[in-house]
Amino acid sequence: MATTPAGEGRQRILAVAEELFTERGYQAVSIREIAQGCAVTNAALYYYFPSKAVLFDEVMEQHAERLNARMRRAGEKPSTYRAKVEVMLVEYAKVVADQCSPFFLMLRESHMLSDIEKRNPWGNLIHALLLPLEDVMQQAVQNDELQPLPDGYSPAALLIGMLHGQIQYRKACLGRSFTNKDVELVVTLFWEGLKVR
Amino acid sequence: MATTPAGEGRQRILAVAEELFTERGYQAVSIREIAQGCAVTNAALYYYFPSKAVLFDEVMEQHAERLNARMRRAGEKPSTYRAKVEVMLVEYAKVVADQCSPFFLMLRESHMLSDIEKRNPWGNLIHALLLPLEDVMQQAVQNDELQPLPDGYSPAALLIGMLHGQIQYRKACLGRSFTNKDVELVVTLFWEGLKVR
Repeated sequence: MATTPAGEGRQRILAVAEELFTERGYQAVSIREIAQGCAVTNAALYYYFPSKAVLFDEVMEQHAERLNARMRRAGEKPSTYRAKVEVMLVEYAKVVADQCSPFFLMLRESHMLSDIEKRNPWGNLIHALLLPLEDVMQQAVQNDELQPLPDGYSPAALLIGMLHGQIQYRKACLGRSFTNKDVELVVTLFWEGLKVR
Repeated sequence: MATTPAGEGRQRILAVAEELFTERGYQAVSIREIAQGCAVTNAALYYYFPSKAVLFDEVMEQHAERLNARMRRAGEKPSTYRAKVEVMLVEYAKVVADQCSPFFLMLRESHMLSDIEKRNPWGNLIHALLLPLEDVMQQAVQNDELQPLPDGYSPAALLIGMLHGQIQYRKACLGRSFTNKDVELVVTLFWEGLKVR
């Protein structure tokens, strides 16, 4: 698709929209500015995307797919489940630690979006992001390395939550940004627990 | 302070401001609306709070202190460290799980606040929230129940992060809200780890 001129135009719009949304937020960016940023007319932009909400949806989807693919690729190399989880989480952290992901704008602005715009603000997207980690952890459960969790719990969601706790603490309370060592400690704690044995 | 008429006026303004900020966000609410909500003049409001930024700061501080006190009170009853941590986290979750806390508006709008308004958007406040949990966990470390973490890590921040991971997963992927059972599982996992022994 990206090799046809039409596909290229579409991709270009998505890339510019992602940059502008991430930088300034969904509300603040107009279709007109995105069109100007791509050097196309508003009409050309509407040809590909009927509304800003649809464009936003596709930006988010593509972003999630890209991160998903990066995590899966990273996870192919290591041989243990734990090392796989660690390198996948490093990929995740690279994108989200600086809050340079459009996910954060979605979080920030979700209270301002209409129901149509947020018809799936988190569900599918979070699910897509968790899935690579979830798959590896599921294999670790099947191989008796990790305990299964009851229905309604996702080990990947808990682990990523823990990482966000550390990223935020570092930034807010210590004024420092996260390192790969943080990811290592979070994975170890999640795997082993904090209890003295 | 709350017994003097002046203190009462101040408290009333803080309460109305917290309600309006939480409902509609910092940017969207004007000093004038807050004054109207308290049935006082703008001048009366400015007598207590020189600017919206100062008022916002005090709203956040008071909110943190209140939650902090609730967590500490809850933690007095149970006899084990683990049970203390669990009841304290239940108190925390009650406030934050619905995102009905002004903390969320701060998170959402932090990119829009000026440097003066966000001179301490997270640091002291997060610290104040973590402290009750941190103290109990520190005692558990001193009594050889938990491992100490290296400098730059906060067990309370990691645990709260994990809880947020679960709250968000429940809400976004399952469309359900959190229960006290979630808190229980998160504390168990944090304490014991997920590894099969």
